[in-house]
Amino acid sequence: MASVRIREAEEGDCGHILRLIRELAEYEKLSEQVQISEEGPRVVGYGQYYFIYSTWKGRNVYLEDIYVTPEYRGQGIGSKIIKKVAQVALDKGCSQFRLAVLDWNQRAMTLYKALGARDLTETEGWHAFRFEGEAMRKLAEK
Amino acid sequence: MASVRIREAEEGDCGHILRLIRELAEYEKLSEQVQISEEGPRVVGYGQYYFIYSTWKGRNVYLEDIYVTPEYRGQGIGSKIIKKVAQVALDKGCSQFRLAVLDWNQRAMTLYKALGARDLTETEGWHAFRFEGEAMRKLAEK
Repeated sequence: MASVRIREAEEGDCGHILRLIRELAEYEKLSEQVQISEEGPRVVGYGQYYFIYSTWKGRNVYLEDIYVTPEYRGQGIGSKIIKKVAQVALDKGCSQFRLAVLDWNQRAMTLYKALGARDLTETEGWHAFRFEGEAMRKLAEK
Repeated sequence: MASVRIREAEEGDCGHILRLIRELAEYEKLSEQVQISEEGPRVVGYGQYYFIYSTWKGRNVYLEDIYVTPEYRGQGIGSKIIKKVAQVALDKGCSQFRLAVLDWNQRAMTLYKALGARDLTETEGWHAFRFEGEAMRKLAEK
């Protein structure tokens, strides 16, 4: 069992975080979509192992990605990150905590459900839509 | 064809916006979930007809809800709102524009696709998960 410390990101973590973002995109088979924002991560748990990228919006917290490198999986690190986010979110006055997951990632889905999350796509039928660069520019011109 | 002006929300719009939020929740069959945040809407198009509630996050814009009251539907007001959001988003340096829709709301799905959006749940398999109040508190205690 790895010893895990969850802390906020610092300037010096950026290189490692970038590497994790790219590894995650490969895992999600979405590498071609990686676009690095100038805005850094807000909350991060890191120690060669994992990171969180999240935003606060009113009374909701959106957890963008959780990534644990292969050699550290199966040790409860994902759960610890999620619990930490819940604690910080409650401290900040949030009443909901949202995240998105790919349907083939059964390991993540099973974990989130076990921790008490509801699959809103399954239970209520929510679909995520996105306009990308070219579609956005066309839209703005119309 | 209604004459439509899209503008930012003002303090005095709050009562109307609250009414629209409740009407939308009824339409979405989610009335029991309405929780009014202390944080007001950021961008709003309004004239007895519609509103937008959106957030900016790095290079993404998330459009939370679009609602046109029944008597003004079918006049292209929804498209105008979406185009305005795309313009403002590009001005702010965003490169993506996301929104969520319920799968039985075929009218909205058809519109978003016609405007160039991709259904990420359909094409990539993204599911939306949410921890609610009690689940969050349990999680934080663990």
